[in-house]
Amino acid sequence: MNKRGFASDNFSGILPEVMEAIQNSNQGHVMAYGGDPYTAAAIEKFKTLFGNNIDVYFAFNGTGANVISLSTLTQSYHSIICPATAHIQVDECGAPDKFTGCKVIPIETPDGKISPELILPHLHGFGFEHHSQPKMISITQCTELGTVYTPEEVKAICDLAHANNMYVHMDGARLANAVVSLDVDVKEFTTLAGVDVLSFGGTKNGMMLGEAVIFFNPELSKEAKYVRKQSMQLCSKMRYIGAQFDAMLTNGLWLKTARHANKMAKLLEQEVRKIDQIKITQKVQANGIWALVPKNKIEQLQKEYFFWVWDEQAGEVRWLCSFDTTEDDILGFVKLLKQTL
Amino acid sequence: MNKRGFASDNFSGILPEVMEAIQNSNQGHVMAYGGDPYTAAAIEKFKTLFGNNIDVYFAFNGTGANVISLSTLTQSYHSIICPATAHIQVDECGAPDKFTGCKVIPIETPDGKISPELILPHLHGFGFEHHSQPKMISITQCTELGTVYTPEEVKAICDLAHANNMYVHMDGARLANAVVSLDVDVKEFTTLAGVDVLSFGGTKNGMMLGEAVIFFNPELSKEAKYVRKQSMQLCSKMRYIGAQFDAMLTNGLWLKTARHANKMAKLLEQEVRKIDQIKITQKVQANGIWALVPKNKIEQLQKEYFFWVWDEQAGEVRWLCSFDTTEDDILGFVKLLKQTL
Amino acid sequence: MNKRGFASDNFSGILPEVMEAIQNSNQGHVMAYGGDPYTAAAIEKFKTLFGNNIDVYFAFNGTGANVISLSTLTQSYHSIICPATAHIQVDECGAPDKFTGCKVIPIETPDGKISPELILPHLHGFGFEHHSQPKMISITQCTELGTVYTPEEVKAICDLAHANNMYVHMDGARLANAVVSLDVDVKEFTTLAGVDVLSFGGTKNGMMLGEAVIFFNPELSKEAKYVRKQSMQLCSKMRYIGAQFDAMLTNGLWLKTARHANKMAKLLEQEVRKIDQIKITQKVQANGIWALVPKNKIEQLQKEYFFWVWDEQAGEVRWLCSFDTTEDDILGFVKLLKQTL
Amino acid sequence: MNKRGFASDNFSGILPEVMEAIQNSNQGHVMAYGGDPYTAAAIEKFKTLFGNNIDVYFAFNGTGANVISLSTLTQSYHSIICPATAHIQVDECGAPDKFTGCKVIPIETPDGKISPELILPHLHGFGFEHHSQPKMISITQCTELGTVYTPEEVKAICDLAHANNMYVHMDGARLANAVVSLDVDVKEFTTLAGVDVLSFGGTKNGMMLGEAVIFFNPELSKEAKYVRKQSMQLCSKMRYIGAQFDAMLTNGLWLKTARHANKMAKLLEQEVRKIDQIKITQKVQANGIWALVPKNKIEQLQKEYFFWVWDEQAGEVRWLCSFDTTEDDILGFVKLLKQTL
Repeated sequence: MNKRGFASDNFSGILPEVMEAIQNSNQGHVMAYGGDPYTAAAIEKFKTLFGNNIDVYFAFNGTGANVISLSTLTQSYHSIICPATAHIQVDECGAPDKFTGCKVIPIETPDGKISPELILPHLHGFGFEHHSQPKMISITQCTELGTVYTPEEVKAICDLAHANNMYVHMDGARLANAVVSLDVDVKEFTTLAGVDVLSFGGTKNGMMLGEAVIFFNPELSKEAKYVRKQSMQLCSKMRYIGAQFDAMLTNGLWLKTARHANKMAKLLEQEVRKIDQIKITQKVQANGIWALVPKNKIEQLQKEYFFWVWDEQAGEVRWLCSFDTTEDDILGFVKLLKQTL
Repeated sequence: MNKRGFASDNFSGILPEVMEAIQNSNQGHVMAYGGDPYTAAAIEKFKTLFGNNIDVYFAFNGTGANVISLSTLTQSYHSIICPATAHIQVDECGAPDKFTGCKVIPIETPDGKISPELILPHLHGFGFEHHSQPKMISITQCTELGTVYTPEEVKAICDLAHANNMYVHMDGARLANAVVSLDVDVKEFTTLAGVDVLSFGGTKNGMMLGEAVIFFNPELSKEAKYVRKQSMQLCSKMRYIGAQFDAMLTNGLWLKTARHANKMAKLLEQEVRKIDQIKITQKVQANGIWALVPKNKIEQLQKEYFFWVWDEQAGEVRWLCSFDTTEDDILGFVKLLKQTL
Repeated sequence: MNKRGFASDNFSGILPEVMEAIQNSNQGHVMAYGGDPYTAAAIEKFKTLFGNNIDVYFAFNGTGANVISLSTLTQSYHSIICPATAHIQVDECGAPDKFTGCKVIPIETPDGKISPELILPHLHGFGFEHHSQPKMISITQCTELGTVYTPEEVKAICDLAHANNMYVHMDGARLANAVVSLDVDVKEFTTLAGVDVLSFGGTKNGMMLGEAVIFFNPELSKEAKYVRKQSMQLCSKMRYIGAQFDAMLTNGLWLKTARHANKMAKLLEQEVRKIDQIKITQKVQANGIWALVPKNKIEQLQKEYFFWVWDEQAGEVRWLCSFDTTEDDILGFVKLLKQTL
Repeated sequence: MNKRGFASDNFSGILPEVMEAIQNSNQGHVMAYGGDPYTAAAIEKFKTLFGNNIDVYFAFNGTGANVISLSTLTQSYHSIICPATAHIQVDECGAPDKFTGCKVIPIETPDGKISPELILPHLHGFGFEHHSQPKMISITQCTELGTVYTPEEVKAICDLAHANNMYVHMDGARLANAVVSLDVDVKEFTTLAGVDVLSFGGTKNGMMLGEAVIFFNPELSKEAKYVRKQSMQLCSKMRYIGAQFDAMLTNGLWLKTARHANKMAKLLEQEVRKIDQIKITQKVQANGIWALVPKNKIEQLQKEYFFWVWDEQAGEVRWLCSFDTTEDDILGFVKLLKQTL
């Protein structure tokens, strides 16, 4: 049995319900590339969630889902504005830059969230052929720093975008954690707020692999299927992604799972706040905690409960909880923290 | 239970041994992105197969594996020579063209196989800056027409390539079917024949998903990990691909499976040759049969046993067998053929 | 004084009228990047030629003009069909492939001309996401083999393209030579025949440098200015390209020049046909002659009048005439041919 | 006669000496694509300037020269670090991003100059496949804000780059203005300081068009000729670029011209500093002045002497002097300023 730590939600495995769905779909022959009943059923569930006027494309991973989202709605002479901490900026080895050909413009933020005020200075040069034309704003919900946009904040960004003939992409690799954090219907901060395209995360929330790209205006995504194929994200035995999403969207599993992870992070936060040597650096709004820890103790801590250092210089670390984090994990880790510090 | 047909080996599901491996690896936390023991074990098995001097990268699908292979060894001002029937030419929506930026040069062939004679006329313009520089030859083993290159044929192509400072890529989406067809060690027509990089197929041979890119000269692949990530092919929960390949390479499962599929194709060939109205158009050397069938009967046949039409004009169809094709499937289909024609 | 040969029309210099125009425009300050009166005047002249409903973009060179034409009207998941001899296929080091991201599909032809019959077999896979979607047919007028499409032939290609929701690009690097060869209004085989976008050549017809991209449906080229800038083809001191084109389109200079070059080619043809050891291999319809010459004599001939070998294997050579080729050049070369052979 | 203003050095025309060189080279036939004696002579002059161990490629424009420089030394999974004001970041419509495929990382600066301190925070993630690998630092000399790096400053950046296995590109669209400003040998802040590749500007310094890419380590540029051709920057009638550069590098014309422009800017600075309502915002080190001007007067001023607004919000304007700016122009403009403000 591999020991659980707090490194990332993709260190964890597959939810039992999801594993069962994979096995159940392993029956005989079905159409490849998405023409199977499992994929159809999963798409139906997405329509129940977001309304019928959507266009859904499954992808292998988050980078792929983001690239499909961005490529479908841009030309190479456009620019894509995002926070400097965005996954598309720092964690995808330039896949969006290369595949879209666009200029990606990073904005520094204190908490991973951009706002109309931060975006506005970059909205210039429209119609000026020397300048990459601003066309897309990409935000992450919840952010790469564990913070969450309110529906109003998302709407303000979307309004600004649309007033400038731009689109909004939401990278929802950890979307479920934001839903349970805000305790609102997912539509509130996506389609109803004006988001044009969403990367709906599956992998980090307990699936083996699989993300969904959801366009909220199918007029815009008429040729997205070619983008998906050309970006190497079309799965042949698609049924196994379809079946996983079907399981996730059955009986609210996707939210139940995220709720647990968020709850574990809250428990960890509560305990860690009691420890003087640790300083939490970001609001704990989802399943992760960012904290300053005495640098010379980090290696020792990692040996028992593995986690990633976020900022080596500063001694900032990241602790993420996932669907399978237990109260015992938290308490054991807190005990270690107290002993070590 | 979904009915089996002869459409494609990716209409079939997952081998029981592979499914078991997925489940067994679903234990606790492990390092993401390939730093797990399952991936390590699978790579070891590949070294047993091909020797230690290899560099292995898992990818999600065949298109991704091909793009990693080609991108790593080319610059955008190079050209890539392949048969006109190559998967990279007709079935990947231009992913190799876009991602490598290279010119892809298709060569017409009668049987999906290219040869030094067919390649030579395209080897010109070396050093001439107006001309995309020939740098890569890509062949498929077994081909998209079910034919198989002998080790000698592969070697002749590799010798020509190397004499011109070029590389050879082998698209082995159905590599196992070629191995059992030739009844030789896989090294004979890959590393020993001079192939530089191989896409080693998993999906079509009974895995859920997963392909391996194998470089036979690690000097050439030092930066392949960045190519893989930027081409959106780096799986986070890699253990599940690792575990599948580990199972495939245990006790020769990968060959056993392909041997069965090839055997079924042979049985089908033997029966079909008895039917006058059907004309087999390619040598049956692996798990597929290409045949001319009276056009007006095709739709009727497809209703009971689904398969794809290869050339609508000509009335040519393709029948593929897979790991789960049974003798009863073959005999049932043959019976239907006889009744219908 | 550098000796004239028959290598290429880009071995020649600048027409006196064009040089004068350059000097005349060298006055004080004007807006950069095309906002100058010289550029405006040249565009007006293009409207006189083709009608007002056009959109004109100047570019530095032919490769640039072709890339702007193709990029503006395609997405990377499209394919571009052209003759195997097309400049975009063999002479641009893959610039169109890289910049558009499209698959370029070459068609073998005997004379550099494609036709509906040759194109049709490549028009398949529409709507099938695995296949690069056919979107563009590119033809060269006159061709890279000195042959010329009739207006009817162009129209037949355009009709086929439009019936399939595709566009037609005409590479007119030597457009003027085709106009005088056909002795028709240039509109006959461009806008009236259905061509969607034209690369209108200047350099090879006596300009220092400069080509024009002309879109015949401005609805399609609304964003072409960004494509031109991103493809590095926007000239800052545009007045000097504008002034050159203005001069070319004044008093029919562009046609007078081409007429002379074509006439010189005809004279050369007439004389060469008298020499038994030389076999002309293509129709002489413009300013070039393709001919088989005894291989062992080629080097000797090149020493006095330089020209390029077209096909080393076959001993085929190309002789191009340009605006400054004189009758004496022709007669001198013919004399040399007779002496040498 | 078109009135001179202070908009840009590319509003001005061609130097008389350069025009003469163009005419003198307009003689008979020469090899196309750079195989001519004028190009050879110009390259010799560059060797006199920078030493023999260089590799020179002419390009059409600055964007093209930058893209050749950057593309030759990077792979698409690299990142390119530059000031947020860099031409490659804001004025090239994303050409470098699209053509290299790299991530371009802009750094905010007060004066257009970056330094090791500003660069260092971006030098991380080496060897980490999720992160675009830092490979190139691009600086502009003189900067887009008219400031100039000292040789020591350039050297410090190059040392940092090389210590991290990175390269340094210098965008020298206005290189000559920096040379005369620093009053040092051009080698001091280029090859001797460690710069790897230089875009040597011609157009803005009085040529019709033409830039030179100079690699200081020919080992790195072995395949640059293919990059130039594929990036659509290979001029066919190259002699006319060669002849222009030859003239520029004869008798120090390139420096004489820049010296004059810088001197005019100094004169303008001196006069403008006497006007209370105007606040100069950047050091005047080359041929440009950045200044805050009462916003409501700008339009009136532009009518007589055209110039560009740099920052509409702030009322900041840019005044550039060029080779043909006269003392009378300066005094006339200053008079207008005094009258208007």
